[in-house]
Amino acid sequence: MEYKAPLRDMRFVLHELFDATGHCELLGNGLDRELIDGVLEEAARYTGGEIAPLNRNSDEEGVTLENGEVRTPQGFVEAYKQYVDNGWASMTGPTEYGGQGFPQLVACNFHEMLMGASLSFRIYSGLTEGAVLALYKHGSDELKNAYLEKLVSGSWSGTMCLTEPQAGTDLALLRTRAEPQADGSYKVSGSKIFISGGEHDMSENIVHLVLARLPDAPAGVKGISLLLVPKFIANADGTPGERNALSCGAIEHKMGIKGAATCVMNFDGATGWVVGEPNQGLACMFTMMNDARFQVGLQGLGIAEQAYQGSLAYARERLQSRGLAGAQHPDKVADPIIVHPDVRRMLLTQKTLVEGSRMLAAYCARQLDLEHGHPEPSYRKAASKRAALLIPIVKAFFTDMGQEVASLGVQVYGGHGYIREWGMEQLMRDSRITQLYEGTNGIQALDYIRRKLLGDGGAELSALQAEFSEVCDRQIDRPALHDMASKVQARIGEWRELTAEIIAATGRDPQEIGAVSVDFLQYSAYVLLAGLWLQAAARAQDAMEQGSGEEAFYQAKLASADFYLRRVLPRASAHREAIQGGAECLMALPESDFAF
Amino acid sequence: MEYKAPLRDMRFVLHELFDATGHCELLGNGLDRELIDGVLEEAARYTGGEIAPLNRNSDEEGVTLENGEVRTPQGFVEAYKQYVDNGWASMTGPTEYGGQGFPQLVACNFHEMLMGASLSFRIYSGLTEGAVLALYKHGSDELKNAYLEKLVSGSWSGTMCLTEPQAGTDLALLRTRAEPQADGSYKVSGSKIFISGGEHDMSENIVHLVLARLPDAPAGVKGISLLLVPKFIANADGTPGERNALSCGAIEHKMGIKGAATCVMNFDGATGWVVGEPNQGLACMFTMMNDARFQVGLQGLGIAEQAYQGSLAYARERLQSRGLAGAQHPDKVADPIIVHPDVRRMLLTQKTLVEGSRMLAAYCARQLDLEHGHPEPSYRKAASKRAALLIPIVKAFFTDMGQEVASLGVQVYGGHGYIREWGMEQLMRDSRITQLYEGTNGIQALDYIRRKLLGDGGAELSALQAEFSEVCDRQIDRPALHDMASKVQARIGEWRELTAEIIAATGRDPQEIGAVSVDFLQYSAYVLLAGLWLQAAARAQDAMEQGSGEEAFYQAKLASADFYLRRVLPRASAHREAIQGGAECLMALPESDFAF
Repeated sequence: MEYKAPLRDMRFVLHELFDATGHCELLGNGLDRELIDGVLEEAARYTGGEIAPLNRNSDEEGVTLENGEVRTPQGFVEAYKQYVDNGWASMTGPTEYGGQGFPQLVACNFHEMLMGASLSFRIYSGLTEGAVLALYKHGSDELKNAYLEKLVSGSWSGTMCLTEPQAGTDLALLRTRAEPQADGSYKVSGSKIFISGGEHDMSENIVHLVLARLPDAPAGVKGISLLLVPKFIANADGTPGERNALSCGAIEHKMGIKGAATCVMNFDGATGWVVGEPNQGLACMFTMMNDARFQVGLQGLGIAEQAYQGSLAYARERLQSRGLAGAQHPDKVADPIIVHPDVRRMLLTQKTLVEGSRMLAAYCARQLDLEHGHPEPSYRKAASKRAALLIPIVKAFFTDMGQEVASLGVQVYGGHGYIREWGMEQLMRDSRITQLYEGTNGIQALDYIRRKLLGDGGAELSALQAEFSEVCDRQIDRPALHDMASKVQARIGEWRELTAEIIAATGRDPQEIGAVSVDFLQYSAYVLLAGLWLQAAARAQDAMEQGSGEEAFYQAKLASADFYLRRVLPRASAHREAIQGGAECLMALPESDFAF
Repeated sequence: MEYKAPLRDMRFVLHELFDATGHCELLGNGLDRELIDGVLEEAARYTGGEIAPLNRNSDEEGVTLENGEVRTPQGFVEAYKQYVDNGWASMTGPTEYGGQGFPQLVACNFHEMLMGASLSFRIYSGLTEGAVLALYKHGSDELKNAYLEKLVSGSWSGTMCLTEPQAGTDLALLRTRAEPQADGSYKVSGSKIFISGGEHDMSENIVHLVLARLPDAPAGVKGISLLLVPKFIANADGTPGERNALSCGAIEHKMGIKGAATCVMNFDGATGWVVGEPNQGLACMFTMMNDARFQVGLQGLGIAEQAYQGSLAYARERLQSRGLAGAQHPDKVADPIIVHPDVRRMLLTQKTLVEGSRMLAAYCARQLDLEHGHPEPSYRKAASKRAALLIPIVKAFFTDMGQEVASLGVQVYGGHGYIREWGMEQLMRDSRITQLYEGTNGIQALDYIRRKLLGDGGAELSALQAEFSEVCDRQIDRPALHDMASKVQARIGEWRELTAEIIAATGRDPQEIGAVSVDFLQYSAYVLLAGLWLQAAARAQDAMEQGSGEEAFYQAKLASADFYLRRVLPRASAHREAIQGGAECLMALPESDFAF
């Protein structure tokens, strides 16, 4: 399947909605519009021309493990070399370690392209950026000096080693041990599963960030430490040195992302060093996890964009039956299926979910940038709260959305959607992992409700709702936008009431937290996207009133906003009603009576 | 994954809701309760003990094509031999050709078990029953005498050969030709794709029912004939004779059902005979297609049941985190995840969709039986209309539901859901085909609206709504059921209004037909299931009032009904609102402006 980065839409979001150049000025990173657009065009060429062509084969070929070494699919090694040599790896890295310091608002577009072109390929580099962040923020100078530059450049890659067979969501149960040595290092022993890129042939060295317990650690999550455990211990000159006592014991056979090595990693007294303070591993890991969760959200978005592109191309070409109002292309043996309303429903659902999510990704990326780079501490703090509120939504909603959009793609293709060579079913299989890893979407929803909503009594969400309500206020008197703005405003009012109901209900019964979490996350996402679609429609209306010369593009934005509000936003009603169904009907059935 | 037929629930539906013995008396087939229950118990042993254990390997091993011959996965040949020898194949076949004449109301339970145990295995036999029906109803005596007995016994199997590369949904485009010969036979030439069980090593002979054009045929669907084209031409003594000029050119590489051979079939002047009248092939094929669509619905149901069983077992065993109201199993290192409300939400969604669909399957099966076997012609006609209305709902809703339930299963399993050896992701991959074949679910929805609703101005749907409304009337004054009955009654009123709106809107604009079709099918299904859950609750309440001795079973039915109405039925609201969003927002965007 061809992948063509949606550059026009990305520029719309970047410049017309989120003023990327103003943002870069504020951050003081020296990026101007020409540079931003130039980088994204080059990124489009790289991802469409070099990465996307590897994706189909990577699924058939998969990865192989022989004598402890993982061989990646054909072309991955060369494409990764380009990724490092051409500076794509270092795009967001800190400048003092050789990075280019691009803000997330810009970089998220490149990352979306990578995910869309090949999720399997992206997985090998995706966690390196998180490792850089965790190390940069929490590592000792010694560790930073030894490892950061190589990680930033991408010539070394990083992993996150959390899960053990008995400890997935519940990290309190983890057993991997780290024994202190006289020289300040530790010997790490234990087995980790589901380690993405735990072993492979693309980078010179692999730096594992491993959660483990020190001998004197308190029980539960308060006794977990984060250790850096490299495959090759760095020499003083920064070259990879001694081979460490760790190995890939097996690779998983999975539903999808078959080009990505998902490894069982065995640590047999491997040498490592604590990152940050002992027993504070979870906090350090969370630095990395926020970034990882945002990236996983982008995976859902990238795959969804690719599925939409494939569906659209197929729907334009496939001739089958005549339109309901008579033949639309009488010169052909049948009409292309894009004339059928139900096929259009599927395409427009894909389109508006993808473009709506892209706006929310940018919104969230901007907050992440401000959190780390705003000159004023109070703004940094505000942005940090906003980003924290949005991260679980981005992760869970985008990945559910990616699965839905890929499945719609299969449906648009009909029988061909089920055949491997066409590539669409691969997108469904590849994207399915994104709803599971970096915390299942159920866990994201619990995080959203418990930490992010109830954690501050609803203050931050209330501020977000007020912001979106003001957007409606600004547009509601414009005749062309009045209906849309009223519809969104009504939903925001409903959202506020629902939030108050949930805060009250969870105060009465803690089971309500888990009873409403997934539906409330989904509800919130649909209303957020509605607010963003209103903003898109407003910008499109502005442009048309000013006479833009791109009438068709802006008309399409208005039509898409209208479609979203009429045909997708109604899903919020189902989630609201389900929430109001309450927790009791979930807890009534005894564990023994689910089956007879 | 273990498969254990849900016998208790099947008996509840059969005997307590649909009076299977009374039904059999009316049909005069001599089946009593003891025989019915005995057969289903034996069926449970066969499917759980012989078929289910083959399913995981069949996905890994797949099928192979060598020198035109297809080898099925290990164990399939032996299991199919048992299927024939023990009479499972002939369960529903006409008695005058050696069949056992079981009604669908009973047989659908066995077929659901087969689908749940292994969809790949079931596919080889699934279309034989449809072929029997088509031949029995439309074939000449000569053809019937030569082929029916073998097909009924299962020693020969059948296929449906419709699709060609350029002709999927749109059969008007098909090109396969049939040239008349002096002896009354035809020479069939053309290539068919996506032929399930087109070639394999399980049966002695394969009888293809092929759609083709005669030389003088009118253009379009009015010029299509149905031909019987056997792999081996039957000898006068009923043994397989001369090898016919047809072959399997390739097998497809698919997302799932890898144990089922999906074949490209090449007919190179193969000998065949017209079934029914020339140019009436589509009508004959529809006889087969109704049965096939009902069976595909059961595939969704069977896989959903299997996914629920797996999820429930995992949720009871997997220990992870503590309940929101504190530890529920303090003796263990963590609570089983079934204590978490969000896991319960997933399990109960699975359970109530599966059990609700099983009731609808039985409702529809009963109508199919009455259509073919009621002593009074007027009842046969009424049942035929009711079945025709329900078939597209059963096919589309059950298969969407099967995919959702399997995906929920993956989510319950967490990361393990994505790993092949656990078996859950296979159910997602296997079930995905059911939304596509025998007419995509979009085509089912068009059939529901165009032929079944608008075809008689809404009369049959109105009768169905009245029937369900009466169910509510009968229960609404019972204190224990008042709330549920009111809720369902309100939805039925809403359904009636929505139906009237749709009839009016489609009269104004034919695009509305395709604009509302999928949402209206889904809406209708959710309300139908609500009505059936109310009936289940009423029977449970009856039993408890009478003192049944199975208190827990009936309490679970009441709790499940309550859950469905509170937490699943709300989805109907989203579909209603989407329908009311109208067609205009679907048709507004020009074909050229879906992407820039």
